[in-house]
Amino acid sequence: MEKYLVIHGPSLNLLGAREPHIYGNLTLDEINNKLYNEAEKYSVEMEIVQSNSEGEIIDLIHKNSNIMGIIINPAAYTHYSYAILDAIRAVKTPVVEVHISNIHARDSYRCKSVTAEACIGIISGFGFQSYILAFYSLLANNGKIELGGRI
Amino acid sequence: MEKYLVIHGPSLNLLGAREPHIYGNLTLDEINNKLYNEAEKYSVEMEIVQSNSEGEIIDLIHKNSNIMGIIINPAAYTHYSYAILDAIRAVKTPVVEVHISNIHARDSYRCKSVTAEACIGIISGFGFQSYILAFYSLLANNGKIELGGRI
Amino acid sequence: MEKYLVIHGPSLNLLGAREPHIYGNLTLDEINNKLYNEAEKYSVEMEIVQSNSEGEIIDLIHKNSNIMGIIINPAAYTHYSYAILDAIRAVKTPVVEVHISNIHARDSYRCKSVTAEACIGIISGFGFQSYILAFYSLLANNGKIELGGRI
Amino acid sequence: MEKYLVIHGPSLNLLGAREPHIYGNLTLDEINNKLYNEAEKYSVEMEIVQSNSEGEIIDLIHKNSNIMGIIINPAAYTHYSYAILDAIRAVKTPVVEVHISNIHARDSYRCKSVTAEACIGIISGFGFQSYILAFYSLLANNGKIELGGRI
Amino acid sequence: MEKYLVIHGPSLNLLGAREPHIYGNLTLDEINNKLYNEAEKYSVEMEIVQSNSEGEIIDLIHKNSNIMGIIINPAAYTHYSYAILDAIRAVKTPVVEVHISNIHARDSYRCKSVTAEACIGIISGFGFQSYILAFYSLLANNGKIELGGRI
Amino acid sequence: MEKYLVIHGPSLNLLGAREPHIYGNLTLDEINNKLYNEAEKYSVEMEIVQSNSEGEIIDLIHKNSNIMGIIINPAAYTHYSYAILDAIRAVKTPVVEVHISNIHARDSYRCKSVTAEACIGIISGFGFQSYILAFYSLLANNGKIELGGRI
Amino acid sequence: MEKYLVIHGPSLNLLGAREPHIYGNLTLDEINNKLYNEAEKYSVEMEIVQSNSEGEIIDLIHKNSNIMGIIINPAAYTHYSYAILDAIRAVKTPVVEVHISNIHARDSYRCKSVTAEACIGIISGFGFQSYILAFYSLLANNGKIELGGRI
Amino acid sequence: MEKYLVIHGPSLNLLGAREPHIYGNLTLDEINNKLYNEAEKYSVEMEIVQSNSEGEIIDLIHKNSNIMGIIINPAAYTHYSYAILDAIRAVKTPVVEVHISNIHARDSYRCKSVTAEACIGIISGFGFQSYILAFYSLLANNGKIELGGRI
Amino acid sequence: MEKYLVIHGPSLNLLGAREPHIYGNLTLDEINNKLYNEAEKYSVEMEIVQSNSEGEIIDLIHKNSNIMGIIINPAAYTHYSYAILDAIRAVKTPVVEVHISNIHARDSYRCKSVTAEACIGIISGFGFQSYILAFYSLLANNGKIELGGRI
Amino acid sequence: MEKYLVIHGPSLNLLGAREPHIYGNLTLDEINNKLYNEAEKYSVEMEIVQSNSEGEIIDLIHKNSNIMGIIINPAAYTHYSYAILDAIRAVKTPVVEVHISNIHARDSYRCKSVTAEACIGIISGFGFQSYILAFYSLLANNGKIELGGRI
Amino acid sequence: MEKYLVIHGPSLNLLGAREPHIYGNLTLDEINNKLYNEAEKYSVEMEIVQSNSEGEIIDLIHKNSNIMGIIINPAAYTHYSYAILDAIRAVKTPVVEVHISNIHARDSYRCKSVTAEACIGIISGFGFQSYILAFYSLLANNGKIELGGRI
Amino acid sequence: MEKYLVIHGPSLNLLGAREPHIYGNLTLDEINNKLYNEAEKYSVEMEIVQSNSEGEIIDLIHKNSNIMGIIINPAAYTHYSYAILDAIRAVKTPVVEVHISNIHARDSYRCKSVTAEACIGIISGFGFQSYILAFYSLLANNGKIELGGRI
Repeated sequence: MEKYLVIHGPSLNLLGAREPHIYGNLTLDEINNKLYNEAEKYSVEMEIVQSNSEGEIIDLIHKNSNIMGIIINPAAYTHYSYAILDAIRAVKTPVVEVHISNIHARDSYRCKSVTAEACIGIISGFGFQSYILAFYSLLANNGKIELGGRI
Repeated sequence: MEKYLVIHGPSLNLLGAREPHIYGNLTLDEINNKLYNEAEKYSVEMEIVQSNSEGEIIDLIHKNSNIMGIIINPAAYTHYSYAILDAIRAVKTPVVEVHISNIHARDSYRCKSVTAEACIGIISGFGFQSYILAFYSLLANNGKIELGGRI
Repeated sequence: MEKYLVIHGPSLNLLGAREPHIYGNLTLDEINNKLYNEAEKYSVEMEIVQSNSEGEIIDLIHKNSNIMGIIINPAAYTHYSYAILDAIRAVKTPVVEVHISNIHARDSYRCKSVTAEACIGIISGFGFQSYILAFYSLLANNGKIELGGRI
Repeated sequence: MEKYLVIHGPSLNLLGAREPHIYGNLTLDEINNKLYNEAEKYSVEMEIVQSNSEGEIIDLIHKNSNIMGIIINPAAYTHYSYAILDAIRAVKTPVVEVHISNIHARDSYRCKSVTAEACIGIISGFGFQSYILAFYSLLANNGKIELGGRI
Repeated sequence: MEKYLVIHGPSLNLLGAREPHIYGNLTLDEINNKLYNEAEKYSVEMEIVQSNSEGEIIDLIHKNSNIMGIIINPAAYTHYSYAILDAIRAVKTPVVEVHISNIHARDSYRCKSVTAEACIGIISGFGFQSYILAFYSLLANNGKIELGGRI
Repeated sequence: MEKYLVIHGPSLNLLGAREPHIYGNLTLDEINNKLYNEAEKYSVEMEIVQSNSEGEIIDLIHKNSNIMGIIINPAAYTHYSYAILDAIRAVKTPVVEVHISNIHARDSYRCKSVTAEACIGIISGFGFQSYILAFYSLLANNGKIELGGRI
Repeated sequence: MEKYLVIHGPSLNLLGAREPHIYGNLTLDEINNKLYNEAEKYSVEMEIVQSNSEGEIIDLIHKNSNIMGIIINPAAYTHYSYAILDAIRAVKTPVVEVHISNIHARDSYRCKSVTAEACIGIISGFGFQSYILAFYSLLANNGKIELGGRI
Repeated sequence: MEKYLVIHGPSLNLLGAREPHIYGNLTLDEINNKLYNEAEKYSVEMEIVQSNSEGEIIDLIHKNSNIMGIIINPAAYTHYSYAILDAIRAVKTPVVEVHISNIHARDSYRCKSVTAEACIGIISGFGFQSYILAFYSLLANNGKIELGGRI
Repeated sequence: MEKYLVIHGPSLNLLGAREPHIYGNLTLDEINNKLYNEAEKYSVEMEIVQSNSEGEIIDLIHKNSNIMGIIINPAAYTHYSYAILDAIRAVKTPVVEVHISNIHARDSYRCKSVTAEACIGIISGFGFQSYILAFYSLLANNGKIELGGRI
Repeated sequence: MEKYLVIHGPSLNLLGAREPHIYGNLTLDEINNKLYNEAEKYSVEMEIVQSNSEGEIIDLIHKNSNIMGIIINPAAYTHYSYAILDAIRAVKTPVVEVHISNIHARDSYRCKSVTAEACIGIISGFGFQSYILAFYSLLANNGKIELGGRI
Repeated sequence: MEKYLVIHGPSLNLLGAREPHIYGNLTLDEINNKLYNEAEKYSVEMEIVQSNSEGEIIDLIHKNSNIMGIIINPAAYTHYSYAILDAIRAVKTPVVEVHISNIHARDSYRCKSVTAEACIGIISGFGFQSYILAFYSLLANNGKIELGGRI
Repeated sequence: MEKYLVIHGPSLNLLGAREPHIYGNLTLDEINNKLYNEAEKYSVEMEIVQSNSEGEIIDLIHKNSNIMGIIINPAAYTHYSYAILDAIRAVKTPVVEVHISNIHARDSYRCKSVTAEACIGIISGFGFQSYILAFYSLLANNGKIELGGRI
């Protein structure tokens, strides 16, 4: 079965409790359930991991160097982890970067993504839906669905 | 019928011919057809306009200050048009910014979006699919579809 | 009859609706009426134009290159339009720049005016009254009134 | 009687002698007379002080923390005195910043005002008339006059 | 007949009147006559347009995407119009950027050209002759004349 | 006989061999022959010197402080030699700066010319033809030819 | 019993050996003993952890999201760990940042704290006493002691 | 009797009234009473001065060049007064810098302290308690109390 | 036996597969074999570790605080890990930094090494040979070999 | 009798005690005596004042707006006092700026003088002799001595 | 016989005398002897030149455009000579840049090498041994020795 | 006889002719005569050299590494020649930097001296007298004259 991996970066385990006016009221489990639902719909395998450690995130990317797609929310690492950037660049798996909040509408250091450079694309600002849209983009990338096709 | 507006910014009329290694081989008409297909699927009205003029783009946003959603690709204006930023900020319509290429993987001045600050979110790097994903995000925003829902 | 021109820049047509905590509750028509009142008091001609287009604003300045005074609120163009700067510099008409809000008390990019360099002066922060004060400064400049004179 | 305070910052005592091509030929006394004239017209009290000392200017602002308005020309302190900024921010009196010359048309360090952030507004470039226009803005702010009203 | 296009950017219509110590005494018509003379000499078609509008200039470039050459003086747009840069990059026509004054000898913001990056080359500082030299470079580029050839 | 001087800066002696995709296939001798041809056509004296030494280039400029014109390609010195800038400023001879490649389309440090400030103008991006066009501009400057004149 | 947590960041395990002219001669154990002494005095629980790992530090903060206070010396992570900043921001526990040396008197990159923004306050430069003072501030914050109270 | 000096910088006389959400509700007198209480507890002399004048603050530091300790809150002068920095550096008295609010959590210019470089340390963010903690650090520095000692 | 430690930083485990045009075709095992060969030649112990985790790398440096030498390739951590810098500074072991590619010939953020400041020296650009040369420099540093000695 | 004024800026009263490795061992009185000696030699009046107050220094300059010369050591004010700059610019008296230490060989913020722009010249690095040399330059400026004249 | 060239840049002739705490006690002759020894060991020709002149260094590189290798220590030119950079880029000979001291551990302007970009690699911080290691890297590059080979 | 050396940097040979409003009307010979006069007065040897070459200036400094003093006007090299800085740092001779014009009152790039860091001091703005004052400072430094001594 085709495998997809979702990586939630540092402090995303606290979603729902943490600054809900920015990150919304859903907990991480609720978001993950929505992702599992979508995976079930399209009959693909979905692994979801949350980690606060830069090194673990790099290990994860390496271990999944040849799957159908990775959806990563590097959270704060977005803004300075050249090591994650290098890990993404080093693997064959297509990677999509997502953010729950609109990173262009917050503190200036949050506008800059050093990791996005090695990704296919970036989706930012749609709450938990950023993850679902990223999943759709990977499905389309792999020919499982067709975006913009005739009915 | 619910109305959605797509605004293609400067030089996007030349898509297909212009630097296809960056922007892909589809012409603007082909992309627009895909958008019309999606609108048809969801039974909503879709207006699509291309303009090279900053002033016209601002007029367009003003004239559609209260519709279901605007999808805008401000192209080069992304990087300096505070006037378009102000126009987006001044209307009630939710706006999603899209880019065909991954703006974080190109020249450094293209990493910065001055217009995204006033948008709901930004989708960048998925070719023509950036537009479709943006449309889905607006449909979900308006309760027409549910992303991550059960089958 | 002596002519004065008022140019309202991009998105000022939405005044009253747009971010009233910053720009106040008056609509553009209400502000214009106050300006016409003042013109009537001093028996001068007053033309008022709003445009979202940088090119149109430049055309307007050129067409009025030799009148008694121009009051311009370049709005977002204030911060990057070297083309409007050059247009002001190219004409004989004295120009006064006005802003409804205090541009020094907002986002850092709004502190910088590239257009003010070619103006006589700048009046910022007094709501619609910025326009009236600018009009008085031009009247004084033309000898129609004397500011600070004896009773 | 309603009180207004005018504060002239460092070296403004030398007006008339100092770089007249920039600051004009009027001496400080002549400017002050014009201000007294205006105060007389509107039957309000006007105190005028010139000081070269940052500390004295701060003391002055504190001592007048609850009057009808302060007009301040911080001169060179405009560009670096966070202490005067804090003093203005700490009082209830509305403050208007004025400059004789157009600070946007001079040396680059003169474009930046650190004090304006805490003021209602800023009027710059109209010679001594900057003071008179600032006085009018305060009168209007206090309901003594109406700018833009019918005849 | 081979076609060449000359685009004069914003405020160049005021040449002769506008800051003659910088831009010379010739009017735009006089410069255009010199260009028509040269076109006649070499039996090529020459179209000359002046526009203050960024959008119109982009339209013009698009409409002439496959002619023998474009000579463009983007005037103030030189320094910030990434939209014109993209338009030049999107067409096949070779483009030469010209400036009447030496942009390296003026305000620091005028030293930077964002549009030149997509041009063949840039000629700056020779008054109206910048246009003629640019025309020669295009003629040579198309094999109509040989620069540096034997007598 | 009227004298013109051409100065080729550092490493230009290696033209033809050095990075031909940027600098073209012509050797320096071939370019010089084209310049001698042009000088012969117009019956003027042309001296051509190549030097890798900043000091020698300054000496050369000083020794030719009163001739008809200097064409200089300062190569890498363009970007930091304030000493050559001062030498150009110190002589009466009109100087034109040329570059074989378009300096605005290369590394960012190559966009900046510190020497151009003291020159009449700059011609960049036309291969060896940059030199010929510069020569024409000097001939026109001295009244030997008329650019844009009637047939 | 009320719990307090002390987190020593990277390389602080080497205290005493490492650059004693900057960090003093006390070993980490000796500092910890002083902290345990103070905890005993005030009958509160004190946990002390040293970690070189950014991820572990974030885990620690999360696990103690609702205790009486955290004293953190993020050491080198102070200057770039937006991930620790986000972790601090995401928990309810009040956090005080401490530094053994005066970070304002060292290399310029050490002057900047990215983590302090989310803390109550910062105490820097008092050797091991920075920790004790931070502990007092937390005790006072929780009403266990009163600073500045009557004898 | 051992002497300690507390210097309150510009506008701190307005504490309680001035932006209480940032600086708290205590007046300066109330804070001073807490400091006198503490001095009484430890039987040391405490002088407390508030001044808005940079020159007076420097004079004060000079006059107390050899006492047991100075606690200084330079307020806005923190961010630009190299003159106070030099005064601190020039005396033998140990100096501790304090701030009522957390300077790292406010405007970016408030993050930078130019005066802290010459101090023993800096305590920022604990309201009036910053002063008390600073006093403790000086007592410990002089051997009057032992922080972290056994019960 | 004298011990040397080699630390390979993040993503170096993927060598050979990852961007071979930059990092070469050798796998990490092949490089390690070459290092073991050299260690055998000189009869010294060599430990080689690869880690993606900043914290683990710091632990490793601490645990080897007194051996004959460490060769470290911090990979992406080179550019921002002040924590590794501090770890190197905190130990007695001499450390040499190596890079496979020439960091001065790549992206601008790769030109800056924050870790090199605490190393003896840096060797960059020689492929796997950077490690061997670093090993020689440490052998020479310890008197095991003499570089530049007579035959 | 011709009058000269020497102004010693903030903290210079502590000379001799303050950082003697930078400022030398002479006290201010000893330096002043040397200045009085020189004044006596040339039969001119010399007034010497030390002040820590920016405002007082400005007052002093104003009061001596028409004497033979001012020698000013603005000390720390050198680096940010635009108010002293304006005072110097506003008077007719020629002013020479002096520094005891070489400001170019110290902290980077000390390299920049904002006050020197309005002075005749600057003498820095010669200890107390900087004052004497400045005095000579003013004597020469007034024709009292001839530097470089024949024996 | 295979030829190698060593270029010592400006002021390296003074080695041994000049700042020995940074550059060591060896004179240039002693370093050169070590290089000659190594050349003799490997039976290759070694030419060694010291020059203070940027132009001469460029000439030297040009004259040796096709030898086995150049070892260059550009000394101060490292930090600004784009002309030497261009010379290195223009020749076929592989070039290795060396520095006696660790340029990353000194003044900030010394961290930047503009010349290294065109070199194979850079070796910095090993005293005279930097040259020997560079020589080994070139021998290995030419297949004369094998680094990391089996015994 | 004690020797002093004066080095005039690039383009100073053109003094008198070159921009006399900045550099005065004296030729270099006239200035040199004044210097010889002074040398004669004090019975010391004075050598004076002008050179446009950075390399030659470095050679000169090296050759005079142990004389009584060097007076250098590095002209444009002041602003970027780290190679001259290193040469000054490498010799024992005390060096004084002079400038004819006030470098702080000109173009911003002229405010920065990279060479002054290694000099005793800098004298700038006194025309040819800068040289004479520098000579006096060196005489005083060597005990030949006493500045500020009794009559």
